[in-house]
Amino acid sequence: MVQGQQFRQSFRVTDKVYNGFIQISGDNNPLHTNEAFAMSKGFRGRVMHGNILNCFVSFFIGECLPIKNVIIHAQSIKYALPVYLDDELEFVAEIEGYYESVHTYEFKFYFKNADGKKVAKGEVQIGVI
Amino acid sequence: MVQGQQFRQSFRVTDKVYNGFIQISGDNNPLHTNEAFAMSKGFRGRVMHGNILNCFVSFFIGECLPIKNVIIHAQSIKYALPVYLDDELEFVAEIEGYYESVHTYEFKFYFKNADGKKVAKGEVQIGVI
Repeated sequence: MVQGQQFRQSFRVTDKVYNGFIQISGDNNPLHTNEAFAMSKGFRGRVMHGNILNCFVSFFIGECLPIKNVIIHAQSIKYALPVYLDDELEFVAEIEGYYESVHTYEFKFYFKNADGKKVAKGEVQIGVI
Repeated sequence: MVQGQQFRQSFRVTDKVYNGFIQISGDNNPLHTNEAFAMSKGFRGRVMHGNILNCFVSFFIGECLPIKNVIIHAQSIKYALPVYLDDELEFVAEIEGYYESVHTYEFKFYFKNADGKKVAKGEVQIGVI
């Protein structure tokens, strides 16, 4: 893993992911669960929980790197556009830096929807354990 | 909701939450699923996924505020200590600022374990919709 290296992964916010997220989080906020409420706020349907994307970030760090001995130290995300049920997202991450003395990698990432628009971007810092 | 206002909420990383998180994220990294691997890295058991805490943040914003018409704009978290299965966590959040012109609140938060130690801290910015 070297600076500038890119990784790509597809994710879909399926019914299983959406309903599973509600079950484990308990977050039934009407923006996420009430179509009429979400539309009254200017969205075209129920807005998926932003933290579903953080579940995808967890998968990326835990499962998609060439090494498995890693742990997340810190992460951040900014949401730019709503994500809807069944949206197909392309996740792109890039190694921003490697700090050898502390065995730490920093990634920046974004999620793009099927229209090619960035729906979220963020950073995640991991340690090699 | 005013600056300095605090909110508290208890969360427990139950088996249901842990297994549900693995199902929706697909993150079976051995640190989270293999006791022997986790112990070989100096932990006393499987380390819970950090993003389980972000699921709790989702619940806090979506369900625990006096208003429901909110959306997360951005959030960040730093992990300080491992969280284990069945850990009882106390979540404490405080309103750091309210920006009336853009209908935005900023919270800082932390999670404390049963030993009174901070396991994670972070910030979340929400908009009123």
